[in-house]
Amino acid sequence: MLLCDVGNTNVNFYEDKRVWKAGAKQRDIFPTDQVFYYISVNKKISDALENKKNAINLESYFDLDTAYEGLGIDRIAACSAVKEGMIVDAGSAITVDIMSSGVHLGGFIMPGLLSIENNFATISEKLKCRLNPHVDLDILPQNTKDALSYGAIKPLLMILKESCKGKRIYFTGGDGKFFSRFFENSIFHDTLVFQGMLKVLKKGGIC
Amino acid sequence: MLLCDVGNTNVNFYEDKRVWKAGAKQRDIFPTDQVFYYISVNKKISDALENKKNAINLESYFDLDTAYEGLGIDRIAACSAVKEGMIVDAGSAITVDIMSSGVHLGGFIMPGLLSIENNFATISEKLKCRLNPHVDLDILPQNTKDALSYGAIKPLLMILKESCKGKRIYFTGGDGKFFSRFFENSIFHDTLVFQGMLKVLKKGGIC
Repeated sequence: MLLCDVGNTNVNFYEDKRVWKAGAKQRDIFPTDQVFYYISVNKKISDALENKKNAINLESYFDLDTAYEGLGIDRIAACSAVKEGMIVDAGSAITVDIMSSGVHLGGFIMPGLLSIENNFATISEKLKCRLNPHVDLDILPQNTKDALSYGAIKPLLMILKESCKGKRIYFTGGDGKFFSRFFENSIFHDTLVFQGMLKVLKKGGIC
Repeated sequence: MLLCDVGNTNVNFYEDKRVWKAGAKQRDIFPTDQVFYYISVNKKISDALENKKNAINLESYFDLDTAYEGLGIDRIAACSAVKEGMIVDAGSAITVDIMSSGVHLGGFIMPGLLSIENNFATISEKLKCRLNPHVDLDILPQNTKDALSYGAIKPLLMILKESCKGKRIYFTGGDGKFFSRFFENSIFHDTLVFQGMLKVLKKGGIC
């Protein structure tokens, strides 16, 4: 069974526990005859797939208990895979969602690390530099590169630590592995969205 | 005595406790005969002022005790005005510097609120919205606007609170007033850079 998570930058695929991805702007990335199940936050691709008989949009099958208005389907899918914990999808943006007893309590959004790096570069030529992921967060920086890295990474870690309130943290997304190493009570789970999709498929008796 | 703090976006002027500003790209903003003292992080304007006889660059007069390499002259000037405390210049970027017994201990840099808002807009069309400065930071957001506002503001406040370690916080810059209302031990001081410049001028016997 082929699953597909369509983002704005990348399209992620999942089949038999294998995952791979393609650029969202690449052509001919979807099978034309094999049936596949997808979710999408990319309107252009959703529109293109809408009338394909072999492409089944799972969005309407999800039924997450939440008061949050406008929660993206990728966040809904990841949250559906977790009954208790904090879900952090660390990509271009970092989305944070809290699940408690199967209920979504709310969440927030921050810019991702690469976005922050790009942002610094637009503010001033002097702030144009690659962030140092190994910057020492326990001492005050003494140069620009460390000052930018510390200022980008430390506030994110602090709010994640405070927000999880002892719950397990499920990291996913491109920077998920990087962030997970700062937290003992965390796991990196690069197929979380697909686990949510599989859960819905099982519930609906499709697989 | 006319003082001038040249930034990348704005040029700030100070005379007899009055302050005003002009856009850095505006023409004819500097007096042609009146003597004025300036600092500048804007290379284009520094170059243009270099050979003007009435424009005196104060940069070389500062002598801040610090191990930090590449500290901007605007940060040096602000820090020179404070013997003990944390200095936060909240503009396009937010710079944070710690002074203890007249010694600069280090500092860090974060994107400013407007930069974060612009950054969100570049990540996804769905994240394009004005931040809500009055978002409730004590409850988990339940919609995109609040999620972005909470994710932009709360991590900044958390790291500022942790970093000041009980010291007084001196806020300056465009968003300085906004941030200062979250901290009891803070003051908003929109002429901090100029106070540093005046201190140097007094020390040098110029005023």
